[in-house]
This record gives sequence, C-alpha cells and structure tokens, in this order.
Amino acid sequence: MSNLLDKINQPNDVKKIPDEQIPALCRELRRSILRTVSRNGGHLASNLGSVELTVALHRFLDLPKDKLVWDVGHQAYTHKLLTGRKDAFGTLRKKGGISGFPKRAESHCDVIDTGHSSTSISVAAGLAEARDLKGETHRIVAVIGDGSLSGGPAYEALNNVGRSKSNLIIVLNDNEMSISKNVGGMANYLRKVRMSENYIDLKGNLENVFNKTAFGERVANSIKKTKATLRSMVVPGEFFTEMGLTYYGPIDGHNIHELERALHAAEKVHGAVIIHAVTKKGKGYRPSETEPSRFHGTPPFDVMSGKPFEALRGVSYTDIFRSEICAIASENKDVAAITAAMADGTGLDRFQKQFPERFFDVGIAEGHAASFATGLSLNGMHPVLCVYSTFLQRAYDEIMQDICLNNRPVTLAIDRAGIVGSDGETHQGIFDVAFLSHMPGMTIFVPRNGAELRAMLRVAVSMETPTAVRYPRGSKDIDFMENTVPITVGKAEVMKRGSKVAILFLGTLASEAMELCGMLAERGIDATIINARFAAPYDKALIQSLSINHQLLVCMEEGVRSGSFSEHVMAYVMEEQLPMRVVSCTLGDRFLPQGTQAELRNDCGLTAGKIYERISAYLEK
Amino acid sequence: MSNLLDKINQPNDVKKIPDEQIPALCRELRRSILRTVSRNGGHLASNLGSVELTVALHRFLDLPKDKLVWDVGHQAYTHKLLTGRKDAFGTLRKKGGISGFPKRAESHCDVIDTGHSSTSISVAAGLAEARDLKGETHRIVAVIGDGSLSGGPAYEALNNVGRSKSNLIIVLNDNEMSISKNVGGMANYLRKVRMSENYIDLKGNLENVFNKTAFGERVANSIKKTKATLRSMVVPGEFFTEMGLTYYGPIDGHNIHELERALHAAEKVHGAVIIHAVTKKGKGYRPSETEPSRFHGTPPFDVMSGKPFEALRGVSYTDIFRSEICAIASENKDVAAITAAMADGTGLDRFQKQFPERFFDVGIAEGHAASFATGLSLNGMHPVLCVYSTFLQRAYDEIMQDICLNNRPVTLAIDRAGIVGSDGETHQGIFDVAFLSHMPGMTIFVPRNGAELRAMLRVAVSMETPTAVRYPRGSKDIDFMENTVPITVGKAEVMKRGSKVAILFLGTLASEAMELCGMLAERGIDATIINARFAAPYDKALIQSLSINHQLLVCMEEGVRSGSFSEHVMAYVMEEQLPMRVVSCTLGDRFLPQGTQAELRNDCGLTAGKIYERISAYLEK
Repeated sequence: MSNLLDKINQPNDVKKIPDEQIPALCRELRRSILRTVSRNGGHLASNLGSVELTVALHRFLDLPKDKLVWDVGHQAYTHKLLTGRKDAFGTLRKKGGISGFPKRAESHCDVIDTGHSSTSISVAAGLAEARDLKGETHRIVAVIGDGSLSGGPAYEALNNVGRSKSNLIIVLNDNEMSISKNVGGMANYLRKVRMSENYIDLKGNLENVFNKTAFGERVANSIKKTKATLRSMVVPGEFFTEMGLTYYGPIDGHNIHELERALHAAEKVHGAVIIHAVTKKGKGYRPSETEPSRFHGTPPFDVMSGKPFEALRGVSYTDIFRSEICAIASENKDVAAITAAMADGTGLDRFQKQFPERFFDVGIAEGHAASFATGLSLNGMHPVLCVYSTFLQRAYDEIMQDICLNNRPVTLAIDRAGIVGSDGETHQGIFDVAFLSHMPGMTIFVPRNGAELRAMLRVAVSMETPTAVRYPRGSKDIDFMENTVPITVGKAEVMKRGSKVAILFLGTLASEAMELCGMLAERGIDATIINARFAAPYDKALIQSLSINHQLLVCMEEGVRSGSFSEHVMAYVMEEQLPMRVVSCTLGDRFLPQGTQAELRNDCGLTAGKIYERISAYLEK
Repeated sequence: MSNLLDKINQPNDVKKIPDEQIPALCRELRRSILRTVSRNGGHLASNLGSVELTVALHRFLDLPKDKLVWDVGHQAYTHKLLTGRKDAFGTLRKKGGISGFPKRAESHCDVIDTGHSSTSISVAAGLAEARDLKGETHRIVAVIGDGSLSGGPAYEALNNVGRSKSNLIIVLNDNEMSISKNVGGMANYLRKVRMSENYIDLKGNLENVFNKTAFGERVANSIKKTKATLRSMVVPGEFFTEMGLTYYGPIDGHNIHELERALHAAEKVHGAVIIHAVTKKGKGYRPSETEPSRFHGTPPFDVMSGKPFEALRGVSYTDIFRSEICAIASENKDVAAITAAMADGTGLDRFQKQFPERFFDVGIAEGHAASFATGLSLNGMHPVLCVYSTFLQRAYDEIMQDICLNNRPVTLAIDRAGIVGSDGETHQGIFDVAFLSHMPGMTIFVPRNGAELRAMLRVAVSMETPTAVRYPRGSKDIDFMENTVPITVGKAEVMKRGSKVAILFLGTLASEAMELCGMLAERGIDATIINARFAAPYDKALIQSLSINHQLLVCMEEGVRSGSFSEHVMAYVMEEQLPMRVVSCTLGDRFLPQGTQAELRNDCGLTAGKIYERISAYLEK
C-alpha cells in the first residue's frame, strides 16, 4: 500500500505531501527500509531511527542546491528513497545496485561518497567556506551521530567550525549508540544533557510511529531518579558553546515539526549551529529497538521473528577469533583486548563478559586505540586490538609511530581483511598488507583456514614485537585441509611439492590454489602449492629454493597490487636474479565496488579458471 | 658557572637542591638549553617555556618508577638534563648523539619514543590501566601542550580517561601556541579560561627568570579590558569537567610551588585530573619570547642577535613553494591553501598574508585538513594542503576515503619528504611514496630541482584529480641542471641517452646519478640517466623501451623499500618479462635515526660511490 511514496519521484517531492500525511509517509518509509534490509541485509537500526530526521531535513532543504552531508553514510536510506531511488532500492547492496552509502554517481543529492566515521563536519566546513568564497548562499547541513562524535576528526572539525564565520548546521543525531552502546566522557555528557530540565519539557512530544514501546516510560523513569542530582549539574550544550558553536536542544528527533522549527531557527544564526536531536535507534521495529546493536549491520533476516536467515551457516573466522582469544586470555593474564565501538562485530563480546577488567571499548577512536595499546604494552600487558581492516586505516600513523617505532608487543587482530562484499568501496579490507608491510618490525600473519587462525593468534600473542593477524569476513575455506605443519614465524607451509610451476597464495585461497593445481595436472604439470602464511617477513629461503626447479611462480592474494606481498616477492626474485618468472594475481590498484565476495573475486580474476587462463600464455613459452 | 647542574647526575638528584636555589637552577637549565640549541639547532621556545614545569614534575615524581609521558616530546630537554644526560647534551641532534625527543634507549626515565602530536594522554591511559591491572600504585603524568589539544587523538583520549577509574594526571601546558599561534574553538576557550577571575587571583605569582618582559603587564591589561565581558561567561575547566575529568587551574606554569601544590592535590583525586598550567613559550630569552614561532624549531643561531647562521644559505625548496603557490593563487582564484599549524614551516606565511580569505590554519589536525580540503574541492575550489611528509601519515585514511575515493582535485604539497635529518626517526619523510602510491587515482610528482618544483606545482594545481608533490627539506640540487623538457603527467625526463646501464632516480638525486654516470664512463659504459619525475603513474613505456638496449636498470630514491617506486618498477619489469636486471637503491625497511641528510644518505648507501660498488657485481656478470 505504498501510496504516498509513489508520489515521491524526485528531490523535493516530499514537500508536496500534506503535513497530516507525514506520519503515514514515515510508516511507509520504515516499511520499505525493513522490507529491503530484511531481504538484502544492511544497516537497519540507524535508518529506522533517522526517518523523521531525514523527512524534516528534506522538507527544510532545497536539494541538490543545498548540501546535506551524512556522517558515515549508513543512515541515508530514507534520503535515497526521497531522492528518486525508491524503485531501485530493492537492489540495495547487490552488485551493480544501490549502495548502502551515499554515492555521488547515484544522485546529485549525494554530496560525497563516504563510509568511515566522523568526517562529515570537516567536509561540510569545507563546503561552507567554498560557498562563502564564491559568494553563494545555499544551506549546508551535516548529520552526525553521537557515536561518530567520539572520533577525533569530528572534534578537530568542531574545533575549527567553532571559530569560523561560515554558516553551517550540524544535526547531532543522538541515539546513545555508536555501533555498540556509546562510551566515553562525551557520551556521558550527552546523557546528562538529555536528562536535563530542558529536555524534560519537550519530552511530551515523543511519539512512536510503528508500535508503542517502553521507551518513553523508561526515559521518564530514569529522569525521575536522576533529576534531583543532575538538575543543577548541566547547562545543556555548554560543551559546544564553549567550543564556539550555537547550541539548540535537546529536541525530540522523531518530532518533525520540532525539528523543522529548530532548522529554521538555526538558519538565522551566524556561524556554526549544532541541533541536538534525540532519536531511538531501530525505532518502529520491536526487534531492532530491543537489540539495536545486532541490527546495526545485519544479514538478511526473517521480519516476523527478527532472526537472521544466516544463523545456520556455521562458524565464521570472527567466531573462531571470539573463542580463541578467550582461551588465550584465560591462560595469560597479561592479554587485554581493545575494540573501537565494535565488540559484537569483532567477536569481542565474549571476552567483554569473561574478562571485563581487561576489555576496553574506546569508542570510534582507532588512533587512540593504537596509542592506548602501546601504553598498556609498556607496562607488561599484551594488548590485542581488534578492528576491521578498513577502519584500521585510521590508525596508520599511531601504528607506525607508537607501536612499531617502540617495537611493542601489540597484536592487531584484523577482521574483514580482503574482499568484504556488499558494503562496497569504503569497507573492503584490501589495503592492509600494503600499508602494514612497510612498517619496520611488523610481522603479518595471514591464516588460510580456521585452525591456522587459532594457531597464529597464539604465536602472535606470544611474541615480543608488533604483530598483525588478518582474516576475512565469513567462512571461506574455514575447515579446508587442516594444517599439519606448525607455525614458524616467517616460514611458509609447503602443501604439495611439485615442479615447473609453484602456486604461492596468501590467506584463504587454498581451494583456488588446489583447483588451479588440478587444472595444471591435466596439462601434465605437477605444480607445487605453498601457503605463504606471512606477508612480512616472508619466506625468502623457500622462494630461493623454488627457483631451482620451477620456471613460474604464481602469487595470489586478496589485496591491492601496489605494495602487495606479490610485489615484494617479484622485487625479491628480480633483485636476486632468480631464474624464475613471477605472475601476480591481486585485486589491482583500484577501489572495489559492492558485490558478493565470490562475485568480486571473479571480477578481479582471482579464481582458478581465470588464473589458469592468465598463466597459459607463460606456459606456452 | 654551572654549579647546581653539576650536582644533578641522575634521576631524583634535583630533589637535593634546596628550594631557594631552584630559581638559580632554572636559570642554569635555560642557559644550557640556549647554548646547545644555538649551536646544534633544535626546539628552543617550547623548552624554555617548560623549565619550571619540568623541575616541578621531577620534584614531585619518583623517576623512573613513576611514568612521565611528554606529548610530541620536543619539550623534554630539561627532562634530559635532569636525568643523567647533561654531559652528553652537547651532542643533541647530532649523529649518534642525544635525540631531540624522548628515547627509551637513552634513559629509563623516557617512557616512549615519540615525535608526533596528541598521543600522550592515550599512552598514559594505557599505562594507567596496566598499572591498575597489575596492582601497582605508581604515578603517571602526561604533559600536553594546548596546541596538541587541537589534535583529534587527544580528544579521543580525553573522551576515554574521563570515564576511567584509573588515576592519571594530565598537565596541560598552555602557552597559546601550537607551532604557529594556536587556533580553534578550544584555543578560544582556553583563552577565556586564562582570562577568568580565577586566574587573575593567581596572577600575582608570575615571575620572569631571565629578563623581565612585558608579558605580565600585557596580560593584566588585556584582562582589564575583557574582564567585565568575560567574567560571567566562563566557568574555568567546565569543558573538561563535562568530559568527566577533574580540573585544577588555571595556574602559573612558571611558579614551581604552585605547580607542586596542584600536583600533590591531583594525586589525591580518584580518576583523571587535568592541571591547567599557563606558560610563556620561549620564556627567558627575549628573541624567542618575541618570536616563539620562529624559535619553535630553529637552525643554529647567534645567541646575541637571535639571527640564524643559516640565513645566507640561499633558497630552499620551501622558499620556492612559498613564492610559487602565491604566484599560482594570484592567477587562479579557486586555489586555497591549508596548513595544520605550520604556516611558517611550510612556507604558507606569505600566502596567509596575501590571500587571508583563502588561507586556512586548522590546527594540528591533519585528518580534518584532508576532509576539509575535500569539502572545499566539492564546491569548485582547488585546495593545496601543505604538510610535512611525516605528519601527512596522520591523514592516511582521510586521503584515501575522502580525497581519492571521491577523486577530488586536491593537491598535497609534501614538504620534508625523504631524509629530513636531525629530528630523527619520528620525522623522516620516508614512507609517503609507499603509502600514497597504493591509493587509487593519486598522481605523485617528485621534482629533482627547484625549477621542476615550480613547474610541477602548476601542473598539479591544474589537474582535476588527486595530486601530491613531494620535495625535500633544504636545498639539495635546487639549481642543478635546470630542465628543458616540459612536464607531462606520467612521463619521465631522459637527461642523457646511453646504453647498457640506465640510472632511474626519483627526486633530488640528479647529482648522484650524474656522478655515478661519470664513474661508469671510466669503465667504458655510456649510461642513460633518467629523472623519473612521477612515482605514480610512472613511465612504463620508457621502461619498456629501455630494456631494448640496457642490461641493467638502477633505481634510486629516498624512501623505504617496501612499496617503493623501485619495487613497483622491479615488479613491472618482472611481470612484463623485460630482458633487463633491476637494482633498487632505497633506504631499506627501517626507521632512520638522526644525523645530517648527507650522513644518512651515506649510511643508507645512497651515494654514487656506494651504488657504484653495489652494481659492480652485476656489471661483471
């Protein structure tokens, strides 16, 4: 019964919907988001929580003339539905389909392609200064969650917009969550502000569109309890006004009229304004209201029960990490674990329960996490910093200058390394080998199956120097041909000895290597298969020895080409003048769009068949 | 007349100096610092400003049992003089000598090797948590400047320590400066706090040890003016208490007794405490009090006049950038310039004066700078982000995800690329080619002399895609063999055509290449010399053509080996099966200690003589 949404075919069409039908439109939007995300997977809770906020912004703004910058961008589904993308919305996160994040190529209403946290205010500040320099007058709004506000770049931006004369509206979408429950001094501060007198006065406006929940009552109860103690402690927004911004709020982020009033007021202010809107993550769908963290990013699920279809799929590398890190920590009291707001996603949830005193969720603050880990290690701890490959990029300098320069026993547990899939360009973990392997002293472990991940974690945590263990999303090859050769740092595993052609793979590509080997066998070539195990330091002695009875070395890995393991091997073979050709099979030097992991591997030529085709030319020579 | 300092030979010896002699000790410390820095160069103003602070900390702490973490670390000279390093202090910043930054290898009182900003609170927080987990009770103090507080990592750390139960003392050394005058909302806030009632009450204690300056009077005057307006606006430290910290201050950072009182009080507080100490950068030496920015990091200078001995040395690459970027900006109104607190160091000082409306000093906030540049570029500007190579590391993720993923016309002007010299490991610009060349779409220009820098800047700013121009500290080869071939993106410059051996260098190594060519000529080899000009995209067609009549390709560059230009070339030659050997001459995969640029080039084998020796083996085959 998508009547109202049918009328919204292009930007600003939402303005034609009469006020009294807006609640119905919001219901339709939620239904549409729920339907697609339950089928395709995606970010549910944040999108359900920002429906009214987005509608209010679209009623206020003139898009695409005005500029709307979404922090991270995972909460832009309503924005997409309102800007001519509702018919394509069913292709969300599919190969060639609508992205789960803003994409300039999709719409002129998407200002910037994003996926990482805490940069929206910086980008908006740049847009605002440029607008003023060019004598233009359009409006610029950044929407940032309270979770993103724990990230340093957001503060760096606040520090700058607070003294700028450029008009800029920042909407703080405060739902008390980053991905996990939001943490830190800022979170506590926002909590106090929410609970303050001001907000109590506005609370009456709270509405639940889909189903009445206990939210309002819970808030009221907790306010009752804390009101007396907190009342005099808080001047709402003092933090922001002290930074030089004008502060409005807190207001109810599900009340469209209140939001619009605030936006219209903000537009009259000179300089930067922050509108503090309180929303409920997952709003309107009971399972996501109850478990917003689980429904932050979700695989496809059954709408009725809220249960993921994937539940029976078996263990993932994350699951293996989850159990093994706890086993290690129970044997070694010096092991601590750190997450940047992703205890669930990285599998540290169990560690958090079992070893709360050694568990640290630092918020979305990867740079701090790396320096903090360094500090822990300087007094005898062995911290394990668990982070998705793509987000580790934020800590590049701190890994280099704190962990590596000081040669600290810190282990980076890098989940979602390699091809990640449906989240697209911003989330692929394809640069980590390139940027970590030029860091002096870093040992990079790359397991090829689950058993190896377990074993490598143990070795890494036993070492006195910086280590990284990188493993993929999902469960590819997780039980494939369990290892017999123990882990030795810097040594590869020879899985099969042959001659003429050697296949050297890094990570979970053993099945492709075996398949390729089979294809070569049909051609009468008895290939050697080697699991590299280490991207750095790699097994130079083995490569030397291979050159004795192999004419071709085929390197395979899920990473960019420049700075790759393959490139290091090629350079080594070249410089040592080894009589052996090397072919590298990488992802090339490019950003990788969305698709399933298998689709993307195929597109990048990282399948046995495609590699076979590629090396045929060499074999014929 | 170094009588008091003579008595201080190991940690805690300072405690033996009677109270009444402390001012004399501080004078000696300042004299010692001034003498050595005027001879060796180094960080003057910040060290002169933190003498009393350091003495107070050393009287309060029991080192090395207690832990003292210096942010950045350039202000630790007094700390070094008080911890058994006064005799070696004359070797400051010399090869094999005392480092200008904390170094664990020098003393057990140096907790961590640092050099980049804003990480001290994170490290101290890790130390504190580890201490508590191990049931220890020693004190932990982080000392951070107000400049460093503009960096995101510092905020990320405050956000975490604000809710931690671990005892931790943070001394905010507030001198209103980062390297340039400090900027931003936080700086304005601190200014307000300094000017508040509280501080006025304490102001009477201000003392000037070396020479009485107009500082006290200036403060008093400005307070007089602003007192009425500001009094009611500021609750000192509210910003920090809202983050969950206990705040003391502002206090006079040159009053040792006041500092000690604050430290002893802070030690009794549960959780994190911030002591806000106001100091004067450059204190006690008139030229550095007057021009603290020029004396932040200074070359050797004449103590009497304050004039640098280097003044006659001629133009540097920074000077060329200074003038050329202004010339470009006067022709193109869309060109904007951004610095992270280093307008002077990067040569943007002239741009700032000439084009104030297009100039942006964002504070020590490189990540924000990159995202902000992206925002500017999204509305038609062409921002030039000017930053030292080593500090650019902080913006790795933002360059990748904002600038490159969105394919924005932003130019990174990377000063201090390659070997930097006396600042040592933390400041060498040796990773930029490795980390930028795997960023999709990035064009990396590397000029070989001053004329080429000018020309390349113009080409880069005319492009519609991400560009980086990297150039070294100083003036090596700056006038060497001016170019005749215009710049074409991705094309190398053939400086001399020969055969058998080709020398392919990146950056300011033309003189070494020419010298090597001369050596080869003596051996009867007429070598080819090529200026690579681009690290990415590089001139593949030329490399192809070289292989026709060259047996050996020698690559030379000032950068780490893994991920280097040389490695890309070697991998290319390998994969294309070109009949040509390649030898790479890089700095290897390691951190590079302090020394002069020439010393370090020699140590790394990056001289004509050493390269000649190295390739002789290949020539004999």
